[in-house]
Amino acid sequence: MKKIINDPRDVVLESVQGFGAAHADLVRVNLDPLFVVRRDAPEAGRVAILSGGGSGHEPLHLGFVGPGMLDAAVPGPVFTSPPPDPIIAATRAVDGGAGVLHIVKNYTGDVLNFELAAEFCAAEGIEVAQVVIDDDIAVRDSTWTTGRRGVAGTVLVEKMVGAASAQRRSLAELADLSRRINDRTVTFGLALSAATVPHLGQPSFDLADDEIEIGIGIHGEPGRAKRPIAPATELVEHLLDELIGELVPATDAPLLLMVNGMGGTPLSELYLAFHVATRWAERRGASIARSLVGNFTTALEMQGLSITVLELDDELCELWDAPVHTAAMRRGM
Amino acid sequence: MKKIINDPRDVVLESVQGFGAAHADLVRVNLDPLFVVRRDAPEAGRVAILSGGGSGHEPLHLGFVGPGMLDAAVPGPVFTSPPPDPIIAATRAVDGGAGVLHIVKNYTGDVLNFELAAEFCAAEGIEVAQVVIDDDIAVRDSTWTTGRRGVAGTVLVEKMVGAASAQRRSLAELADLSRRINDRTVTFGLALSAATVPHLGQPSFDLADDEIEIGIGIHGEPGRAKRPIAPATELVEHLLDELIGELVPATDAPLLLMVNGMGGTPLSELYLAFHVATRWAERRGASIARSLVGNFTTALEMQGLSITVLELDDELCELWDAPVHTAAMRRGM
Repeated sequence: MKKIINDPRDVVLESVQGFGAAHADLVRVNLDPLFVVRRDAPEAGRVAILSGGGSGHEPLHLGFVGPGMLDAAVPGPVFTSPPPDPIIAATRAVDGGAGVLHIVKNYTGDVLNFELAAEFCAAEGIEVAQVVIDDDIAVRDSTWTTGRRGVAGTVLVEKMVGAASAQRRSLAELADLSRRINDRTVTFGLALSAATVPHLGQPSFDLADDEIEIGIGIHGEPGRAKRPIAPATELVEHLLDELIGELVPATDAPLLLMVNGMGGTPLSELYLAFHVATRWAERRGASIARSLVGNFTTALEMQGLSITVLELDDELCELWDAPVHTAAMRRGM
Repeated sequence: MKKIINDPRDVVLESVQGFGAAHADLVRVNLDPLFVVRRDAPEAGRVAILSGGGSGHEPLHLGFVGPGMLDAAVPGPVFTSPPPDPIIAATRAVDGGAGVLHIVKNYTGDVLNFELAAEFCAAEGIEVAQVVIDDDIAVRDSTWTTGRRGVAGTVLVEKMVGAASAQRRSLAELADLSRRINDRTVTFGLALSAATVPHLGQPSFDLADDEIEIGIGIHGEPGRAKRPIAPATELVEHLLDELIGELVPATDAPLLLMVNGMGGTPLSELYLAFHVATRWAERRGASIARSLVGNFTTALEMQGLSITVLELDDELCELWDAPVHTAAMRRGM
């Protein structure tokens, strides 16, 4: 294992400290328990948006803390849910009296720990609503999940719900909106290589020199099938055909299409995949009205990508286009 | 070789087309010859800033085309200088009558082709000035260079000179400014793995399972030495000590410190390296006044990082902080 780290037990703490130092204009880092909040938190009267989960998916979630998106991110150990304690502490830190929305990716450990935290906060008088994101169409159940996994689509939910929070919508409205976006969002990915969790020291699965894994998650858990590498057009169109089959979009609904790198894939390959997607859309008469290309929800140094398709409407377009100022996404502020 | 590509000969063209489609609000892509310009180019009376070089370093340079930074980027084949033709065509496309500054990384092929292009443009009546960036302190001469190589520091020059161009400075002033920034900028990098050029199909060098290369460039050309992997603190402090020794900064000069990923390194490791740098700076009494952490000048899927240190002054701080709107760097617009 070759990584630019010190003691594997300190990877998350040291990395989050570096993040906090690099973005001190945007965030504050609390070290014990570990969480990241907007520098100006809490904001009285506005519903706060909190997300979190295992580390190793950066910039998710801490890179999305800032005006127009998340109020707090709670990073757990690598590929492991944070325990309830830091979730509770972060919820307290961002509650401005209007409640806190927890955006949780669908993994058994995350859902359980966030539920425990929410119950604890409710007992303290902080209103919490939880939404579970399960955009990954690859597998129905998996090693760590009952039902679909939550993957890169989470970024789109966080962006749009953050914008809606800035409009001062209520906690119930924001929870409904999150579920509505989740229902219109599907993701499917593939991996060319595995990631190595620092404290384990070995890649999480094996692939032959000419082999890829279709339907991979963001932790190296098994996908649908191993198959030989093929030209990008074939691979990307396979993902897109599967995605569009799940979505059953309304006729002519414009799409938001995200090409998300898994951490170790060159940006040039992600743009190449997007080029393939644009030609696919032209042939199908589909409209890619918005797009996002880059590394947003990663699995350490894994090579591969996922494609997310979100069926837009006027409201979601407006929320997507709204100003945002975070380390990993910024526009108009 | 496993990559998300089609025919290796089409990698750059397909990728740049995808880039153009994803950022049609910012850029126009010319396909033959291949170059990328600001959507609103040319701007009458303002000096245009153009850069380019071999592909495989994305987001450099095309990710930095937009208001406040570059007017044009000319991507060559992977790790190979563009020929004069697209440089000439891009120069024509962005010249607004005030001349065009060519920012060129110091590689023999690039310097020669940009010089030929500049002579051709001069004969057409377009005023061109060339500045050569050579921030890499690792090696004096290398496989592809006489003198130091131009690497990640190029991003800082492009940002600051782009801001100065927006202030309507003259071509001569911008060329002087570029050289002044280059003289205050030093970079040193290391690699944990090699990159594979698509049309070659094999990694550009070999490293043992526990081995890294210190002083690597951005093409897999040899660095200073192979050595065993060590804790991040040791590696990063070694880079910083060498850098600061080259810089001989004025007492108390604030620094801009960039941790740049080589493409295949997780963002979390880059922030961890930045954390090490902040502790190093505290011990030395150095001030990191500005920072940039992420993948900006890459070598395809190479794992590793470089650190760049730029000695700031008030003028350079102001240029750094100025608004910019590009695919890969954005603030305040």
